[in-house]
Parts: sequence; structure tokens; C-alpha cells
Amino acid sequence: MIKYLQTDPWKIIEDSFKRKNHRSSESIFSIGNGRFGQRANVEELYSGPSLQGSYVAGVYYPDKTRVGWWKNGYPEYFAKVLNSTNWIGIRVWIEGEELDLAHAIVLSFRRELDMRAGVLRRSFSAELPSGRTVEVEAERFCSMADEETAAIRYSVRPVNFSGTIRFMPYLDGDVKNHDANYDERFWESVEQESGAGSGTVITRTRKTEFDLSVSMALAATLDHKDLHVLWHHNQREFYCENNFEKEVHQGSTITLFKYIGLASSLNYDERELKQRTQAAANRALSLGFDKMLSEQEKAWSEIWRLADITIDGDEEAQQGIRFNIFHLNQTYTGTDERLNIGPKGFTGEKYGGSTYWDTEAYCLPFYMATKDEQVARQLLMYRYRHLDKAIENARKLGFHSGAALYPMVTMNGEECHNEWEITFEEIHRNGAIAFAILNYTRYTGDKSYLREYGIEVLIGISRFWAQRVQWSKHKNKYVMLGVTGPNEYENNVNNNWYTNYLAVWTLRYTLEVIEEIKSADLSLWNTKKTKLNFEEKGEMAAWKDIIEKMHLPQMENSNIRLQQDGFLDKDLRPASDLKQEERPINQHWSWDRILRSCYIKQADVLQGIYFFEDEFSSEELKDNFDFYEPMTVHESSLSPCVHSILASRLGYNEKAYEMYMRTSRLDLDDYNHEAHEGLHITSMAGTWMSIVQGFGGMKIESDDIIFKPTLPANWKGFSFKIIFRGKIKHVQVHHQGFDVIETTA
Amino acid sequence: MIKYLQTDPWKIIEDSFKRKNHRSSESIFSIGNGRFGQRANVEELYSGPSLQGSYVAGVYYPDKTRVGWWKNGYPEYFAKVLNSTNWIGIRVWIEGEELDLAHAIVLSFRRELDMRAGVLRRSFSAELPSGRTVEVEAERFCSMADEETAAIRYSVRPVNFSGTIRFMPYLDGDVKNHDANYDERFWESVEQESGAGSGTVITRTRKTEFDLSVSMALAATLDHKDLHVLWHHNQREFYCENNFEKEVHQGSTITLFKYIGLASSLNYDERELKQRTQAAANRALSLGFDKMLSEQEKAWSEIWRLADITIDGDEEAQQGIRFNIFHLNQTYTGTDERLNIGPKGFTGEKYGGSTYWDTEAYCLPFYMATKDEQVARQLLMYRYRHLDKAIENARKLGFHSGAALYPMVTMNGEECHNEWEITFEEIHRNGAIAFAILNYTRYTGDKSYLREYGIEVLIGISRFWAQRVQWSKHKNKYVMLGVTGPNEYENNVNNNWYTNYLAVWTLRYTLEVIEEIKSADLSLWNTKKTKLNFEEKGEMAAWKDIIEKMHLPQMENSNIRLQQDGFLDKDLRPASDLKQEERPINQHWSWDRILRSCYIKQADVLQGIYFFEDEFSSEELKDNFDFYEPMTVHESSLSPCVHSILASRLGYNEKAYEMYMRTSRLDLDDYNHEAHEGLHITSMAGTWMSIVQGFGGMKIESDDIIFKPTLPANWKGFSFKIIFRGKIKHVQVHHQGFDVIETTA
Repeated sequence: MIKYLQTDPWKIIEDSFKRKNHRSSESIFSIGNGRFGQRANVEELYSGPSLQGSYVAGVYYPDKTRVGWWKNGYPEYFAKVLNSTNWIGIRVWIEGEELDLAHAIVLSFRRELDMRAGVLRRSFSAELPSGRTVEVEAERFCSMADEETAAIRYSVRPVNFSGTIRFMPYLDGDVKNHDANYDERFWESVEQESGAGSGTVITRTRKTEFDLSVSMALAATLDHKDLHVLWHHNQREFYCENNFEKEVHQGSTITLFKYIGLASSLNYDERELKQRTQAAANRALSLGFDKMLSEQEKAWSEIWRLADITIDGDEEAQQGIRFNIFHLNQTYTGTDERLNIGPKGFTGEKYGGSTYWDTEAYCLPFYMATKDEQVARQLLMYRYRHLDKAIENARKLGFHSGAALYPMVTMNGEECHNEWEITFEEIHRNGAIAFAILNYTRYTGDKSYLREYGIEVLIGISRFWAQRVQWSKHKNKYVMLGVTGPNEYENNVNNNWYTNYLAVWTLRYTLEVIEEIKSADLSLWNTKKTKLNFEEKGEMAAWKDIIEKMHLPQMENSNIRLQQDGFLDKDLRPASDLKQEERPINQHWSWDRILRSCYIKQADVLQGIYFFEDEFSSEELKDNFDFYEPMTVHESSLSPCVHSILASRLGYNEKAYEMYMRTSRLDLDDYNHEAHEGLHITSMAGTWMSIVQGFGGMKIESDDIIFKPTLPANWKGFSFKIIFRGKIKHVQVHHQGFDVIETTA
Repeated sequence: MIKYLQTDPWKIIEDSFKRKNHRSSESIFSIGNGRFGQRANVEELYSGPSLQGSYVAGVYYPDKTRVGWWKNGYPEYFAKVLNSTNWIGIRVWIEGEELDLAHAIVLSFRRELDMRAGVLRRSFSAELPSGRTVEVEAERFCSMADEETAAIRYSVRPVNFSGTIRFMPYLDGDVKNHDANYDERFWESVEQESGAGSGTVITRTRKTEFDLSVSMALAATLDHKDLHVLWHHNQREFYCENNFEKEVHQGSTITLFKYIGLASSLNYDERELKQRTQAAANRALSLGFDKMLSEQEKAWSEIWRLADITIDGDEEAQQGIRFNIFHLNQTYTGTDERLNIGPKGFTGEKYGGSTYWDTEAYCLPFYMATKDEQVARQLLMYRYRHLDKAIENARKLGFHSGAALYPMVTMNGEECHNEWEITFEEIHRNGAIAFAILNYTRYTGDKSYLREYGIEVLIGISRFWAQRVQWSKHKNKYVMLGVTGPNEYENNVNNNWYTNYLAVWTLRYTLEVIEEIKSADLSLWNTKKTKLNFEEKGEMAAWKDIIEKMHLPQMENSNIRLQQDGFLDKDLRPASDLKQEERPINQHWSWDRILRSCYIKQADVLQGIYFFEDEFSSEELKDNFDFYEPMTVHESSLSPCVHSILASRLGYNEKAYEMYMRTSRLDLDDYNHEAHEGLHITSMAGTWMSIVQGFGGMKIESDDIIFKPTLPANWKGFSFKIIFRGKIKHVQVHHQGFDVIETTA
């Protein structure tokens, strides 16, 4: 745990400059608008350790796979979100001396992420090696109101001298990914131009050939009055710049405005890109910083109106949940069905910015409850659009007849991961994608996705399960061999209960949905049947046989579902037996020792009980929670939230609160010393679930939404809003009980 | 299967030049002398596809590990045998036109490996683009008589013209490894010098700092008469050369002799290396090619005197077994305890030239029976010398108190492999190292290694097993979780029968050996006990408990030992059910499909029954062979030999012969299309075992050696020799029975 930030209900505040915290702050103070995002790198030169990161949603590069020993079936590439054109850069010289915080005495410093308005602010006063002291204020945002624009206001005030200040705003497309497997360049230069107070850089990704155009439009003021500036401009491959200098009196403030237009060939024909981004930059310029800022505040206030959660009496928890909600909204807005939610969002390169099962298992409920239902539907459409590739992916692994295996990690529907025990074996992901269809349909009541699209996804996944199981003569049961469950601290196990249960559930749900469509719209069903070459009688009979005869490992005379065959051969010990210096075990134990141990990375059996809680009694939940949670080391960011929710269900209030705090401030307090690599965006949605489903006790029961709240001991109260079938439910929990106020959405 | 070589009892012959076969021939025609080795690259320029390879035993580079996803416990590097200074190179110009078989019409061609003499010969006639035709004869060998020398005789005869022939013999140390993980250079230049008719290049490996010096001494003849030559010499970093040219009349023959001295800092102080290799080259020069050749023939005839196997009536089988014996002798001579047997010997880069369990399980018996017992003892000393590193290796994985885990792959005792399911889990290798001690002691009767060194190795390995097992409350037995057996088509299984059995056997054998040493030499035992901190009472009691209560999976009411827990849940089908186009499955199936299938890569349960055949009845052998062999796809080069031996035991003569032919001509007939990468050296020792232990029925029974031969149907007879406790046993098998003629060694 590394704690250096100030607590505040609406802001993240860093009030001194420490080089060792800078890379983490670059992650934590990241800003974005769903279309593009930017780490909190500084505008001026910074020669200390930094991870430059400017990311554009959906623009990726297929980086050649790196493995030690190739296994048949591995994908050729790993799609990576790209560090792209640096649009924030402004170099600053003061009487010829370049401003660089790594070579200055920082007299005061404040970095502030205003979550209410979606604005990053930084102010500092620094003494340069010459002894000259300047005060600097920098402010920027990615516009939520006009998603192709961004704006920067950058002011310098000479404190103890009068002299020449020179600004050099630039765009630089010659950037690289820190995590490139072979140190390859991902971009090539297409075009650049510069004019007085303007410039554009167009770059193109190699292989995938995405064009990205970034334009800037510049203005300046002196003591808040427009300044007519003589711009010197310049360009070369990948790059353009403008320069001006001005004599500034001691105490006066010179301000540079840099307005950005940014778009890619994902949205426009490449021939019109330049004109589009120049128009966007000019649109921002003519609006001006203050008006843009007020639109930004308005857009965010509209988001907060529905998404905010208030916590009374616990400012750390309050700040934590808002931080999570803020980043989720920056990462994904649901306006484009080709996009999804990368585990690090726009805050780092790790995990390549690709889509994992996190989206379905953890993120969907947040977007479903705080946004228009169209947003959650987009997430489902993303998978529907990838169905053909999931079928192709399964075919490559030896499956046939339309069986679909969704990839573990993907950008465009193709598998990117390359560890056999995950890529080929962590197939429960397929079940989460099926479950999301139920989850959406049950919550929204909208059956149109299910009938028109979902049924195809369900049949593809069911066909996969039907081929993936095999008949064990020895057990006289169907078995599923060689899988990895959500607990990745076990690999290549037989009969992972969670996976087997999900498989059976998928088959059962698909059969139900088929019957329902048949009775609601027979001709639709006949169309689907033909399209999918569905052998109604044979396939459905085979599925029923599997449902009936699947092996679901369970402890004898007990409610305990066994994580996998042979789990009881392990030396079962509580995680509390581990020495502090051995934790996290994934940093201290060899991999085989972890695998042999009983220790659980994240909810596995409990994930299944969480998904399907109505299918288990509260005794069953309790027995399994009491059995598994003590062995769980929670070394996945996705672990604490599920346990927090289940603990709330069981009335284990202290456990629920402990788990909540761990997930809510995971990055702010940098529990795992990894914030410098980027934030845990998908687990942030789990944090939201911990409050709404956990403390709030929200559940859907036969087309109705119910709440059974509990109030953590040290909270005075909390409140949240939920959009449910056209209504907004405002839930307020307090010591006396709770109120639900309903308004029309 | 790719068959392009001629059959001959003593030679390997290629009688036409095909570019597509050249890289395979470079492997097959490799020569070496245990100290260094050389692929059959051509001396003159060759601009077609080729894998240059010159290897020096024991000189390696720690190439930085490449993995997709790092696992805790992985080693930082993979030690690699190095492609080193090219000493064969002779560039040739004919009237200014460079000779290059890739740009000439090859009118005739013959490449011949004379296994009786250990000489590589090549002759061809080629028409150059100008229309000039030359006849070339090239002959070379790595001296077995003087292991720091090699010699090349290279003759050119103008056929249809008279003109200038220019030779440029050179040494070039600026070479790279094809399989370098990051395209790094492994060598740096130390020194080079050249004189008239001489030259030396000294290079040094980066990081490991091995110095390698190669010197050449040159001579020439015209029509077999000494030629006084005006040498022009030259040098630069990594490189030296000599040049001379001569007007040669049509029909005359000009010959260049290139004598090589080669040594490394493994054997000499680096300050005297240059002088050593120059002296070696000059020694060869003054001896002359013909005398060196006759010494080479003598050295090889001494090898063949004991090692030869004759097969009457099956020339392909005869050529096959001699090819195997020839390469084994080229690869390892047993003169240096720091050296071992890499899977590809000196014939390619694959597997890094490091040591695997192949040495103990497959190679030891060959060297033990055909060489002085000192040679086999060297192989055991190699592991003894690595004991401290094996203890350190185990410590890194969480073991303690002197538990030793020998590495899966090693050069100097440190682990090099980096796949968790192998590195951490394929721990049966430890058992093979223990078994080799029994095997050596039982065969030679020499107990001095066992008492002085072997006991320490055995205790280290026993301690590992004792810590690696765990008590299963559920089974009321000791279990061993998360292992990979010899059948690498299963990973991370529980209770691999072979591994569990080996563990129990090691504990039992170690206890026996302790008792024996105690009664033979109590003070020696007390010294060992103190040195090893051995808790006699506690450790021995714990081992006995494990021996008694180990879980050894077995099919109910059956002799079948189960490969691992849950094996019977698999869909058990014979390999004959596989379609031809699916084989080998490791090239056609995804890895997970292989893992889930019942198919077996190489002997697993049967490897254990082979090792400990006296502990199983012939019914048990038969039942297990009949159960497992049909599911075995033999996709490891180490598989057919064990099955051939066991089939011989069972009187399954056709199966035994089929398996023998598969292993014996694996590379000559290039069964797996991989000869271009190098030869399967360690499996060659298995081939030898197939004849001696299989068809020859050789067994050790209470200090005696017995033979129960069978004669394959199409053989008229076969014979082999065995050194056994000071005697040579010459076994001759024929239709009427067999004779054993005994002479003193």
C-alpha cells in the first residue's frame, strides 16, 4: 500500500512532487472521453521516469507473439492498444532555459483531478537552475461534449524576474509502445503540415492501416488579454510544431491555449480525416477554453446525475467509489459497438487494451444500471459481431458444426492470448458471455436482442460445450477435462465445477430460449434454424443428455461444491497461515508451488454461486463461502468485489466492508504496487457492484427489482441511483432503514 | 520419410546434389571428435540455404530467456552451445569466377561419410556460368587421435581449360546462432593474426567469457608435388585469411591442405591458448594429411573393435545401427567430466546442446557397455559436480534442508528450461538420475562411486521426494500433485504412476545404500551424515512411511498401472483410429486437444516397467504393454526404443522390429522432416539398446550378465560386443541359436 494522495469527496489531490510517485500519478490522474484518453504526462519536457501514453479507442496493432516454446494453435499476434501521437506536448523556455521538473527545485506543487468536471489541473512553482522562479498552471480535458476535441490551458508567470518566455506546442507521432515484443515501430508517417498557429500530423499503423489524424489550433493571452502572436512553424515526418516568444514582466501571466482535434479512420474515410480534425480543432478554438470547460462540466454533471453514489461518514470510501465511477465513464461510453473495455482503459499499455471476460462478468451490470439500456446492448452486440470469428477460433482448435469459442483476449474477435493453459483451457469465458445475455434480458426485460442475436450466440456456445464434454465410461457421467477455471492458480484441471455448471446452465438456458422463441415467433425460429443449420431433434436431445448426466464434483455428505476433481487431495489451509513476507504468493512462490497449493486467486466456485444465487440455498452459499473464502488470497483485482457481495448476502458485514475497501481504493492506495502500469478499470465496475448489489442488496426477482440493504458499521448512510425499465430508483440507506424514490428516467 | 541416401554397410552416400536436401545432409554428414564438431557445410562459398555450424564442447552462452508470460521461478537464461569460428572456409576463384554450387551446373556429385574411418569426403564436377568445368575433391576430419586438430584436403582440377585458380582459406569468428532469442551476438573479438600460410583468430563469448582460439597452417601441392606458394595474408577483427593463386593446366590438380588447431579456455589458461593452437596446427602440418588420416583410421578402428554391431542380411538395418554408433562416438568420448551429451550433439543448435535426462535414461548403457567404465563414471560425476546447484535449484522453488532437484535442461548445473509444466513439474528426471546410479553400480560392480559420491546425490534426491509428496487426508495416502511425466502429452497431472513409483524406489534404494555403507564403513557413513546434516532417525522414518503409504494409481481388479489419477475418464482409443493426415498430432492438433486425448507421446508407465522389470511379472508387463502401446503415438524420438525392447521381451517380434527400424533410421530416412535441424543423438543410444537389450536380451541378474536373444525374421544373424567387468563378451546370434565368446578386455 502506497498512500500519498489527499482525501476529498470529489477530487484526487497530490500536493507535492515526488519523482518516485510520478509514474503512478500519470496513471491515476489519466483523463479520457471513451473515444480517446491520455495519461497524466506533463505538457512540458520531463526528463525523469515517465510512461508516455496517448490512446485511441479501437486503434490497435497486431504485435507479433512472443513465446518461449510454440504450441500448436497459438495465435500469431497480440493486438495492442497503441501509444499514439503525443498531443499534449508544449515545450517551454524561460530566458533560454528549458523548463523541466526533473531539473528544477519544486517549491510548491499541486495536481488535482476534478472528477465532478472531468478536468486535470496542475499548478506549481519552480526554481530553475539559474535561480529564476516561475509559477505554472496547466489545465486540460478530453471533451465529453464533443468527443473529437480536447483543450489545454497552460500559463506561466515569472515570479522574480522579467524575461523572454518561449512556448513550443507540438504534435509528435514518432512514439513507441513500451511493451512492444520485439521493439518494433507500430506507426508510419503519412502526412504532416503546419501553419501559423496550427498543425496536423497524420500517422498510420503498420499492418492494420488505421489512419490517425491529430490537429492543433493555438492561441495565447497575456494577463488574460488576447495576444497577437508571431508563430514560427515547422514540420518533419511524424511531427509539427509552432514557436513563439514573448517578453513577460515579472508578475504578469502568459497563457497558451492548445486546442486539439483528433479522429481516426475507424470513423472517417481517410481522405477526409485531415479536414475533420482541423475543423474540430478550429471548432474548439472558436468556442474558447472557458465555454468548452462549461460544456465539459455540463456533460459530466449529466453523467453524475445518474451514476453518482454518495457515502456519508466515510470520506475515503466516498472518494474511492467516485474515482471508480469516474474512470469507468472515461473508458467506455457505449456510443460505438466496435469498442469495449480494456482492463487498463486508457491508463496504460498492460494487457494490450483488449477485451476479456471482465466485460461480461463485471462491467455489464454497471453500464446496464447507470446508462441507457442501449449502452449495455452495445456490449452484447460487440460479441454478436464476433460470432463468426469465435466459430473460426473453435474450428482452429478442432471443433466443428458452428461451435463457438470466444477468445480469452481480443480486439477484433480473434484470439490474442498465448499461454496454452489460458488460451485453450480457460473456456469458462464462453459461459460468462452466455450469462451476460441472461443478465441483460432479465434486467431490461428487452427480449429483442435475445431473439434476434443472442440466440445465435447461445447456440454457438452450447454447441461448443456439447463437443467439449466427453463421456467417461469410468464415471458414467459427462466430464470436462483439461480446463482452467477463474481461479488461475490451478491449471489444466479436470471437471472444474464452475465451468461444468456454466456449461450445463448454458445448455439449459439455450433450450428454454429456443422453446420461448418457438412459441413466440415460429417463423423467426425457422429462419434461425436454417441459418445455423441447427439439427433441432438431435442437438437438443444431446444437450438434454448432458444436462442430466454432467459430473458436478461435490464433497460427500456436504453442500460443498468441489472446485475440481481431486481438490480434496490438497493440503487445505487458510491463507492466514501464510507468512506476511510470502504474500502476494504470486510474487514469492514458484508457479508449481502455487498450483499445488490450495490457495485460490479469485472466486471460482463462489463465482458460480454468485451468478446463479437463486439456484442455491443460503446454507449452500454459507457452507461454500466458509470453505473457500479462507483459502482465497484475492490476488486478482476481480476477487474482492464478488466476495464483498456474497459476504453482504450472508450478513458478514465486516468481511463485506474489508473486501469493499480493498477493491474501492485498489489503485488510489496502490495496494499491489502496480498503479504505475495503469489502473484496474474492469475491477472498478466490481466495486460499484459491491455497493449496489452488496450493501444495497439489489436483486432482480421475476421482473421486479428488490433491495435488501445493509449499512457498513462506520457509515452514516449511502445512496445510489439505478435505471430500471424506464424508471430511476434513488435508493437512500440510513441507520433507520432505507427509502427508494422513483422518478421517470 | 525422405529417402535420398544410398544404402551401404559402412558409408553414408549422397550421389546427387539437390538444394532441398542440402541442409539435412549438413546434419547427417556431420563430423566430430567429442571435443568439437562440425556440420557438413561446404568449404567453398555456398549461397543457397545452409545452417552453418561449428561447435565446441562445453563452450556456451547464457542466452536471455524468451517467454510470453513470466512465471515466478523461471530461469533468466537458456545456455546455448554456440556456433563458433568457421574453420572450414576456403573460397575458390577460377579465372576470377567464384565457385558456388548454388550458381553452377552440378554435373556429378558424391558426398560420402566413411564411418569406418571418420572421414567426410565430397567430390563433384561442376560447370561454372562461364562454361569452365572443374572437378573438386574435398576431404576432412576432426582428429580422434589428436583431439585439438582437424585437417582438410581440397583439390581442384580444370577439366576443359587452363587458367588461374585462386584459393582463399580463412578463419571467421564473426558468426551467429540461428536460434538466438533476441538476435544478439554471442562472441566478441579478442585477437587475430596472420602470417604467410598461417593465421589465428581468438574470440571470447560474452558474459561467460570463454576464449576460443583457432589456428590454421596451410600447404599446397600441384599434381601431388609440394608447391611453393606466395601467400598474401590479411586480417581484421574476428577474421584472418591467406590468398594465393596459380596458373593450372587443364587436367592438372591443385590441392590445398588446411590444418587446424582448436582449443578453448576450458582446457588452457587464456594466455597460452594462441601458442597451443598454433602448435597444434603446426603439429598437423608437419605430420601431413596422409599420416593424420591413417592415425584417424586407427583411432576409429579401435572404437569399432568394441562398439561395432554387425547385422547380417539387412543392409539398411546394418547401416542404421552403425550410423548411430558412429555419431554417439563423435559426440562424447568421456575424457572430460565437465562435458555431457546434448540431444543434437554437434549437428545443430536445437535444444541448445544442453544435458537432459536422456543421458541417464538412454545414453549411459551404451557408454557403459562399449567403453572403459571410467567413461560411464564421468557421466555420473557430471551430476555429482552439479549437486550443489541442484540443491540451490530446489531451494529457489521452495524446498529446503538439502533437497535436490536436478534441472530439466542444463549446461553447468543451472536450470535453463522455461515452460512451467516442464521446468517445475517434469521432476521424474530426478528419478532417472538416481536410477543411473543403480544402473552403473549393478553393471560395473564398482561401489566406490556410490559410496563416495552417489550416496550424496541419492540423499539429495530422496529429500526432494520426501518434501514433494504430501499427505492426502481424503485418500489416506501420500500423493504427488502437479507433475508432468515422461509422456509430455499430459501436463500438470496428479499422481503420475511413473513419477510416484520412481520416488518410492529412490527412497527404498537410498535406505538400502545407507544400510550397506553403514555396515561396510561406518566411519565413512558418519562423515557423510555430518556433511549432509542428515537426521538419520527422523528422515529415514519419514521415508519409510512414504514408501509404505504412497498412492500408486492402478486399475481396479487389473494389472494396469494408471498413468495418472483420472486417466480412465479419458476417451480411450487406439492411435490406429487417427487419420493419417492428423499425424503427427503435435503438428496437427491444438495443444489442449492433445492434452485431453488419451494419446501418449512416449513410454510413461512402460518406462517404469522397463527400468524395474524385475519388479513386475511378465503378465503385468504384457497387460500394461497391450493397454498403453496402442495409444502411443511415438512422437518422441525416445519412444520406439523402449517399446522395441519390451516387445522383444514379450516375444512381439514384429512390433519389436518395426520399432527398431523407426529409431535406427530416424534421421537417415528423416521420418519427422527435421533432420535439417540436426540429428537425434540421444535416441541413437536407444537404438543401440534396442539391439543389445532388446534383440540381444541382455540383462544383469545378481552380478551376472545374461542374454536371451531373438532374431528378427528377415535377419540372418547379428553380433555385438559388451565389456562386462573386465571381459569382452562377443555375442553372435544366428538361426541356430547364439554364441557368446569371452575375451579379456
